[in-house]
Amino acid sequence: MTMNVIGYAARSAKDALVPHRFVRRDPRPDDVVIEILYCGVCHSDLHNVRNDWGHSVYPMVPGHEIIGRVVSVGPNVSRFKPGDPVGVGCMVDSCRHCAACEQGLEQYCEEIPTYTYNGIDRHDHMPTFGGYSEKIVASDKFVLKIPDGLDLKGAAPLLCAGITTWSPLRHWKVGKGSNVAVIGLGGLGHMALKLAKALGADHVVLSTDEKQMAAVNGRFELIIDTVPYVHDLNPYMPSLSISGTLVLVGFLGGLEPLLNTVPLIMGRKSVAGSVIGGIAETQELLDFCGKHGITSDIEVIKIQNINEAYERMLKSDVKYRFVIDMASLKG
Amino acid sequence: MTMNVIGYAARSAKDALVPHRFVRRDPRPDDVVIEILYCGVCHSDLHNVRNDWGHSVYPMVPGHEIIGRVVSVGPNVSRFKPGDPVGVGCMVDSCRHCAACEQGLEQYCEEIPTYTYNGIDRHDHMPTFGGYSEKIVASDKFVLKIPDGLDLKGAAPLLCAGITTWSPLRHWKVGKGSNVAVIGLGGLGHMALKLAKALGADHVVLSTDEKQMAAVNGRFELIIDTVPYVHDLNPYMPSLSISGTLVLVGFLGGLEPLLNTVPLIMGRKSVAGSVIGGIAETQELLDFCGKHGITSDIEVIKIQNINEAYERMLKSDVKYRFVIDMASLKG
Repeated sequence: MTMNVIGYAARSAKDALVPHRFVRRDPRPDDVVIEILYCGVCHSDLHNVRNDWGHSVYPMVPGHEIIGRVVSVGPNVSRFKPGDPVGVGCMVDSCRHCAACEQGLEQYCEEIPTYTYNGIDRHDHMPTFGGYSEKIVASDKFVLKIPDGLDLKGAAPLLCAGITTWSPLRHWKVGKGSNVAVIGLGGLGHMALKLAKALGADHVVLSTDEKQMAAVNGRFELIIDTVPYVHDLNPYMPSLSISGTLVLVGFLGGLEPLLNTVPLIMGRKSVAGSVIGGIAETQELLDFCGKHGITSDIEVIKIQNINEAYERMLKSDVKYRFVIDMASLKG
Repeated sequence: MTMNVIGYAARSAKDALVPHRFVRRDPRPDDVVIEILYCGVCHSDLHNVRNDWGHSVYPMVPGHEIIGRVVSVGPNVSRFKPGDPVGVGCMVDSCRHCAACEQGLEQYCEEIPTYTYNGIDRHDHMPTFGGYSEKIVASDKFVLKIPDGLDLKGAAPLLCAGITTWSPLRHWKVGKGSNVAVIGLGGLGHMALKLAKALGADHVVLSTDEKQMAAVNGRFELIIDTVPYVHDLNPYMPSLSISGTLVLVGFLGGLEPLLNTVPLIMGRKSVAGSVIGGIAETQELLDFCGKHGITSDIEVIKIQNINEAYERMLKSDVKYRFVIDMASLKG
């Protein structure tokens, strides 16, 4: 039973998103068919739609912060049953056998993960389509459980904005007593602040608050830099503690102006990067958010307003994430 | 009893080093007076002599890879006795109370360590003078024990070249089964190779060996970059493993060409820096080298040939470290 679904797609880098009918694959034995309830709007959706990274394929159905309910499961699936609230993030598959995959680091799969949209399925070699649509089909290994009681629409951004900041917080061992700074207060930055506080960090500072940044010389073990465009890192280095790390999660490109090595060497400091998180780690995040009642601060929109939402996102005119109510697709 | 000592000094950034008579301080109760037997010649001696970093004070007696024998100790010193073989490295003091000092990270002292030469003593505010001289006076806390049986002249470079590579090997937890690469095969690089192997690293590669660098994509958990001048880091990033670190120990300045963040983000990789090591860590290194019989590969020179040695060092014409036999001072 091939699925004919409706969604919103970009048909070229220049076009606005428009209603688009397309075919989802026949479910495989390990697949879960999901009715999409909500989908977060990520800055990278816009980058991909406009081909800012040069590898976009059209038509493109964006969306990788997907929350829905299970409609049906294949015969090999035992973790889910119809009606379960579930999530799908940025990946729907990976090679599953490289060193990274074996460590649960599918985001760093040596053979490149299969991205939820603008990717190519590893089995049928068809393009993948994302969450701005009524249904999605995904392998059960890449489907996340949403804990009971978590607000579903506020949970959508956890699948990308949440895990992108959770993963470095965990990798660099932020916990009780840690001092953490966040650069940039958008979808990622506001999640980083919430998560760091919930992890017990004593001192969590937003770098753009000058009062807070005064007298923080040598303070932070970790700075999470969520800024998605080129910017000077040098002014932040003095605020790192000895052996501290500034981790970039938003900007792909060359570090300009030149990064000065003196503060790195004279303080054993690091500049690092990190992208999303592994599947087990994403489940860990969702469970943590369920336990602590953490969701994203969102503005719910109808799919018909997606193009206007993109323009507002470009102006940072959203506190802090747009989430599409997919019921509007039927409206 | 003020000590009148002979050494070699630069009297300006333009002059060759010449014999120079100067006064060492009266020993304080916690001081050790050391007769210098050998002193290694570090590339930073030349940088300082020529004022490459802009903060040189003249006359300058360089030298911070010092090996000698204890002549006398102050009344508060119990760790040393006359005749003991000892070492002095890049620091002779630090504030001793900041967070870094309390963790044994005196090299990152928040109030800046007192450097062995071209520094200012914290107590008498007099300039410090280094190891190209017959005697030195240093606080016992900053004097290292040289293990029995270690070749004294080959041990001199451990005090800077050795600890500078040992500290990152330990901080980034290199051990049995680790994969480590070294960029640059000079005084630091050759020590990094020896120490990584002795720590049990399975795979230690010199990056400038093209054959060895073929097929090392994603291989190294740690790359120690000892190159002392500006160079492109981007070609090395693919050879780092997921979560791997390239640590700069030799180059102070801006990273040019621009460091690309894509491999950092898409592989959770880091670019870090590190400088020398703490006092306890330096003793750990010396004890390790004593146990494993590790010394630097050196060429012994007379102090009268120091200016020629500088010229040869600039051409990398030494395998791999010059060490001054200080007996030549009396010659």
